Amino acid sequence: MVALSGIFVPNIVPYDAQGRIAEDELRRIIRWLVGKGVTGFYPNGSMGEFIRLSYEERKRVLKIVVEEAAGKPILAGAAEPNVDLVLEMCRYCADLGCRAVSITGPYYYKLTQESIEQYFREIAAKSPIDIVIYNIPVFANEISIPVLKRLALDCPRIVGTKDTSKDMGRFQMTLHEIKSQRPDFSVLIGWEELLCTALFMGADGGTLSSAGVVPEIVMKIYNDARSGNWAEAKRVQFKLLDLFSLMVGAPNFPEGFRAGYELRGFKAGHARFPLSDKEENLIAEMRGKLACVLADCGFSEAAGECQRAECAATKIPPNRVDIENLVREVMGKMLSQQK
Amino acid sequence: MVALSGIFVPNIVPYDAQGRIAEDELRRIIRWLVGKGVTGFYPNGSMGEFIRLSYEERKRVLKIVVEEAAGKPILAGAAEPNVDLVLEMCRYCADLGCRAVSITGPYYYKLTQESIEQYFREIAAKSPIDIVIYNIPVFANEISIPVLKRLALDCPRIVGTKDTSKDMGRFQMTLHEIKSQRPDFSVLIGWEELLCTALFMGADGGTLSSAGVVPEIVMKIYNDARSGNWAEAKRVQFKLLDLFSLMVGAPNFPEGFRAGYELRGFKAGHARFPLSDKEENLIAEMRGKLACVLADCGFSEAAGECQRAECAATKIPPNRVDIENLVREVMGKMLSQQK
Amino acid sequence: MVALSGIFVPNIVPYDAQGRIAEDELRRIIRWLVGKGVTGFYPNGSMGEFIRLSYEERKRVLKIVVEEAAGKPILAGAAEPNVDLVLEMCRYCADLGCRAVSITGPYYYKLTQESIEQYFREIAAKSPIDIVIYNIPVFANEISIPVLKRLALDCPRIVGTKDTSKDMGRFQMTLHEIKSQRPDFSVLIGWEELLCTALFMGADGGTLSSAGVVPEIVMKIYNDARSGNWAEAKRVQFKLLDLFSLMVGAPNFPEGFRAGYELRGFKAGHARFPLSDKEENLIAEMRGKLACVLADCGFSEAAGECQRAECAATKIPPNRVDIENLVREVMGKMLSQQK
Amino acid sequence: MVALSGIFVPNIVPYDAQGRIAEDELRRIIRWLVGKGVTGFYPNGSMGEFIRLSYEERKRVLKIVVEEAAGKPILAGAAEPNVDLVLEMCRYCADLGCRAVSITGPYYYKLTQESIEQYFREIAAKSPIDIVIYNIPVFANEISIPVLKRLALDCPRIVGTKDTSKDMGRFQMTLHEIKSQRPDFSVLIGWEELLCTALFMGADGGTLSSAGVVPEIVMKIYNDARSGNWAEAKRVQFKLLDLFSLMVGAPNFPEGFRAGYELRGFKAGHARFPLSDKEENLIAEMRGKLACVLADCGFSEAAGECQRAECAATKIPPNRVDIENLVREVMGKMLSQQK
Repeated sequence: MVALSGIFVPNIVPYDAQGRIAEDELRRIIRWLVGKGVTGFYPNGSMGEFIRLSYEERKRVLKIVVEEAAGKPILAGAAEPNVDLVLEMCRYCADLGCRAVSITGPYYYKLTQESIEQYFREIAAKSPIDIVIYNIPVFANEISIPVLKRLALDCPRIVGTKDTSKDMGRFQMTLHEIKSQRPDFSVLIGWEELLCTALFMGADGGTLSSAGVVPEIVMKIYNDARSGNWAEAKRVQFKLLDLFSLMVGAPNFPEGFRAGYELRGFKAGHARFPLSDKEENLIAEMRGKLACVLADCGFSEAAGECQRAECAATKIPPNRVDIENLVREVMGKMLSQQK
Repeated sequence: MVALSGIFVPNIVPYDAQGRIAEDELRRIIRWLVGKGVTGFYPNGSMGEFIRLSYEERKRVLKIVVEEAAGKPILAGAAEPNVDLVLEMCRYCADLGCRAVSITGPYYYKLTQESIEQYFREIAAKSPIDIVIYNIPVFANEISIPVLKRLALDCPRIVGTKDTSKDMGRFQMTLHEIKSQRPDFSVLIGWEELLCTALFMGADGGTLSSAGVVPEIVMKIYNDARSGNWAEAKRVQFKLLDLFSLMVGAPNFPEGFRAGYELRGFKAGHARFPLSDKEENLIAEMRGKLACVLADCGFSEAAGECQRAECAATKIPPNRVDIENLVREVMGKMLSQQK
Repeated sequence: MVALSGIFVPNIVPYDAQGRIAEDELRRIIRWLVGKGVTGFYPNGSMGEFIRLSYEERKRVLKIVVEEAAGKPILAGAAEPNVDLVLEMCRYCADLGCRAVSITGPYYYKLTQESIEQYFREIAAKSPIDIVIYNIPVFANEISIPVLKRLALDCPRIVGTKDTSKDMGRFQMTLHEIKSQRPDFSVLIGWEELLCTALFMGADGGTLSSAGVVPEIVMKIYNDARSGNWAEAKRVQFKLLDLFSLMVGAPNFPEGFRAGYELRGFKAGHARFPLSDKEENLIAEMRGKLACVLADCGFSEAAGECQRAECAATKIPPNRVDIENLVREVMGKMLSQQK
Repeated sequence: MVALSGIFVPNIVPYDAQGRIAEDELRRIIRWLVGKGVTGFYPNGSMGEFIRLSYEERKRVLKIVVEEAAGKPILAGAAEPNVDLVLEMCRYCADLGCRAVSITGPYYYKLTQESIEQYFREIAAKSPIDIVIYNIPVFANEISIPVLKRLALDCPRIVGTKDTSKDMGRFQMTLHEIKSQRPDFSVLIGWEELLCTALFMGADGGTLSSAGVVPEIVMKIYNDARSGNWAEAKRVQFKLLDLFSLMVGAPNFPEGFRAGYELRGFKAGHARFPLSDKEENLIAEMRGKLACVLADCGFSEAAGECQRAECAATKIPPNRVDIENLVREVMGKMLSQQK
């Protein structure tokens, strides 16, 4: 058995003017990402505002993503409010043919590591589908390395982890303490800043919000890393830092990323949480800067919102060939190697 | 108009062996608390594990509490996942005749104060029922004093706050900055340690988890404070510290409080989150100590689980008359004053 | 033996234009505070920037305070860098006739509670002078209640604690767990917001930065509390909140308090840490507001810097009799009772 | 001008039985490290307990290190209590011929970024010696990236930074935002876990506590990285994780590292802070494990304390040739390249 690997995109959910899920636009986003060569999808994650959807809406989002994913593997968020509901969602995901589910540490209450271990053991014992443990301490209870290690070594259903702790030391310990003993355990990075270094030290891939906005860039870093083309991977990683720090630094996560989707030509609508006027302005300002960085990367559809003189004048960004050509070239190589 | 005042009990939800809501036991708990003279109820709070119930279960719990509350005012938790669902729950609560709803700051995502203000403004503008803002920073985004002040002074629907920040300085600022300007704004304490000092400085009452386990003690502090009998209020406050620190110090909140209900004669079942063996032992140990403190307070039904020699011998706790007699006396005075 | 009680003033250190200790001004401050009826002094605390003075300067400050204190008891900060230097300072304080030393938890390194306990045991075993343990977790390692309890019950030299944790629950636990078993153990509050409630629950007094700026107000709260005049104590406590929140909210602690001394007529000079231009402006703005609140309290010397129309016109604040008269009255009563 | 580069060792200070600096042993440690090929030294850092030494002791330690360093560059800690004392120490370091001083953010008080910027500007304007800014947020105020950037671009005296924030994202931002604009600005990693990834992304070197205990391993990672031998660098980085997590995980930092020095044959004595019995046992237990890992790495002098069967039997560790031979080989290559 091989470890889950590659880049799984945690998609946003677009809404219409009434705040309902904009299903057609969601389908369009998924198809566009399929065309960009992403490995798979990660619906109902933090990026997809799982916690602001109703249970039925989460099922609906998942169904749509599966239908449009063209057979690519799905890692579906299943962090439901209690064990019974988690298991119900696991069965639903299994029936739809998902590759695995991803479950965060429990949120709201602060729990002991012993409780959290017991929680995942119960789920793992009964789940009909493989499980990835999603560590995101900024939003939910952290899952410690010793707990994760015991779960990984005891529970066949637990096949990997996604780490969004921003902690490269912890990430390396996951590789060193767990993957070294169970090579088919998938260790995925969930924080853009660490993509290149995580791959360098042995990560299997990542699930990165930015991959929905700039799939070309994230896939290029991943593919360059896989090809051993580290100089390029590092160079583009620093570009990704610029893009990511703008989007993640915007108020009211994931609004910053939603602005990114808009700049790539989608109608995202507002996230399901109100914005103050001050925040609207901050996001508009960030969006202008983001447009310029995107234009610099060669994404011409974003250039229209960049107010800099050279962009405003020509609307043809100076180095647009850069990333797109490189991606084409690298992907060509990758494909030819796979034959 | 007068401010909401008194002690509102955030009840637990008892479960049967299959993990379903034990409706009859829940009814028995509410009736028992009515008999103890509590002011009102607070279903679907953190104590009631609102986040681990399904939406339909939360509605069911609320309906049962309303049916058994004998007309006492209900402050109903309505911290739903998004504005539309909050408003739907508000309408449901209004239809059932609740006095007000209580809404926490949003949880999971970290949001700016501006967003949080906007969130409450939207809800307040459309809610058919009064709103109490529930500040519990250990579990959900904090609501700052400046935001709370603007909301209190601008939004007639927002009629009070429950504060579980453990921060007596903040609590006093709420009284000083807000209640001084809007006297009908209700300032409720949500942390047992601060009950006596909060009432002393001007609180309108509280919603305290312990009030479901030892309603006699919490009501005695409240009634003594209202009568100006501060020496007694302080004396009993220190007793409450002992009880509370045991229950809140147990792992896997609210398991410690559920053990307290069991010692008072109810079948609580397990909370909706697994316990490890280590935690089971810790809670059993805590329960033994809690039994002794309860027995000391005169709650004879708890004495059976106290392992100390004097309790084991007689099962008649030495000073059982203490609290119960005092409560009877104070409540008699209160009632006669109201005539 | 009786517990240390009353209000100990943690004085600032005034500097001249070259940044040297302004000894004459320091003497004038101490004499002024003696005249205001404060209980004693607390040199070389956080307020006194002990950490920014050289070892010799700390000794010099202490000597000056002792010389001007007119026999009032001195609680001297002795949080030196290692056990030997702490003990050397303890001997120096003992030789000068100080009542006790105050020692914070160690700062910089993060230490375990076991180490911290051992640290205080070693000092207590060898110190020639009584020790107060100063808990200020925002700046130094916290000292837990169990550690404090063991130290208090085992070490005769450890005679009290000053608590600046802002945590009223912890403060009550200190009273409940320690003072109830050792009544001569002094429990002092070190956070202005909690002065009134701490005294209400049983504190022996406090060491409060504001007592150097508005000794009249802090002593009035203390004296009213001691006389059982709680309505007045509460009323003035809310005034103190206004003053304290301005001074503690200013950037670059203790600059805000130094501005307060200036408004009372002293030349404080700058704290021993640079201010940016932005901060200079923030402090100037705060100083204007503070002047008005001080003027409202009847401190006429501050009125000159209040820019409000009514102050600007007359420079005679409207209710200056308020506090000063009340203080005179209450202190008269106190003195007559002591006879 | 070229950026400061290489591995600077933050040495411990050994003490004799009376707690005085063991000068001969300190000399022996420095000479041993010179022989191991480290780049330079970093006296009076966190590892060297600068904060527990007197001012005169810090000067003495520095003098000894300079005398024994055989001309290797010295980066001297100069985080003194106020600007005047910092500058006095800077002059002392300059007179001794140090390469630069390293200054932490201020500790104890919490300060604004504006103040901290002003603090470093004042020092930089007057210092006779180059300055490295040391970011260690766990012990002292953090220095934000925007502040560090302005200082780096405005102040020629500020020639680099040491980062001990454990935050690989921040580290990359330092490279991306600052070093890209000022290539001679030295960006040093101060956290063992990130050595390999930091060098991979462009770090100039590091100052790592472990380099005093296992200089062979740290220099091997550094030299392999410089030679582009990344497979080896990564392999040994995981070994370093094992060693570092034992030493840094021991209570009462830097006791764990002092145990490491003892296992390499030095008499470290106790750190200048008491240990409880429980901690003595924890450290003894850790020391046993560390001995085995050191023995596995080929450091035969440590094998004597490893209790495992194979070590106990032969006291000849199985793969001792491993690191030592490799180091010899790599250093040979490096030297031949420099010719």
